[in-house]
Amino acid sequence: MSVTVINYDQDMSRWEPDARGRLEQAALELYSERGFEQTTVVEIAARAGLTERTFFRHFADKREVLFGGAPALQELMVGAVADAPDSIAPIVAVTAALEAAGAVFQDRRESVRRRQTVIAANAELQERELIKLASLASALASALRRRGVSDPAASLTAEAGIAVFKIAFERWTTDTDQRDLSQVIRQSLDELKAVTAAT
Amino acid sequence: MSVTVINYDQDMSRWEPDARGRLEQAALELYSERGFEQTTVVEIAARAGLTERTFFRHFADKREVLFGGAPALQELMVGAVADAPDSIAPIVAVTAALEAAGAVFQDRRESVRRRQTVIAANAELQERELIKLASLASALASALRRRGVSDPAASLTAEAGIAVFKIAFERWTTDTDQRDLSQVIRQSLDELKAVTAAT
Repeated sequence: MSVTVINYDQDMSRWEPDARGRLEQAALELYSERGFEQTTVVEIAARAGLTERTFFRHFADKREVLFGGAPALQELMVGAVADAPDSIAPIVAVTAALEAAGAVFQDRRESVRRRQTVIAANAELQERELIKLASLASALASALRRRGVSDPAASLTAEAGIAVFKIAFERWTTDTDQRDLSQVIRQSLDELKAVTAAT
Repeated sequence: MSVTVINYDQDMSRWEPDARGRLEQAALELYSERGFEQTTVVEIAARAGLTERTFFRHFADKREVLFGGAPALQELMVGAVADAPDSIAPIVAVTAALEAAGAVFQDRRESVRRRQTVIAANAELQERELIKLASLASALASALRRRGVSDPAASLTAEAGIAVFKIAFERWTTDTDQRDLSQVIRQSLDELKAVTAAT
């Protein structure tokens, strides 16, 4: 799926350089300025200097503009679990996946923060985000099973990883200090270990 | 919210004994027999020997019949966290909440299993379930903060608890052996400790 999208983008870019990226940027600006509900596809396309038809070549609807990166993110994280050395523990493989994702977000801090603000203001978008996170947990659990990790360890490790990611991500997008997301992820994981070990 | 619902039920029961429970039972039977999408509110009311009007006095729509217990469950779990002795660790307080919920489900094993089968067959219902779980995690985190637990420990403990609950619940509804849900919850929590502690 994401491979198709990537090829398609490369193909499109001969005609409309980075149409997809321009649409994402325009949508985020408009959602921030006037709210998700008040923004139309026509307005997004106009802001990007593209047509409505081009918008629909890239995205099914205005909600999907915010989640267009999910398949590539999932592929990146599943790949990190698959590529981790055989000898390492499942949670360490999942941590590698979280840090790979963290590096991608770190490079786009401002737009990631703006996206989170848009999502936090809309219940329907929050639900969509939850579904994407659940799908990611499920994909990571499958990747662990392919490494020979049995259940429930595979599912628990994946769910724990996504819980850490969710909380680290929220902290990083709202924190005023300039810590790296990877650093917040590692701290959150250490804190998860501490809270679960307490008796 | 759930208090209102409970009072309302008691009031209704003077006229239609356990109308709410009968509607839930009828809906679950029909969803199992012919599928969620193929069942109408009229059919549910007829199966329960009640009117459509009575249905809508208790539930907003046919989806909500499956989630009508969520506010009471949340209240039960939040109450368990609040009532836990001051001296115990946050994860132990959350475990008490999970076990309180487990005891409720344990007594309704067959209908709980049937409900899970209905939900697993429908993407929209799965999304609704995810949203309810996220809301539960958020309520547990708030209950921990009221106990003086600071963030991110409060959020991480709550998310870890819900991850354990989700997986224990799935195992318990699909397992062929007759273990108690509380037992599966405690095992899953121990496994979470083991997987997060591995390095």
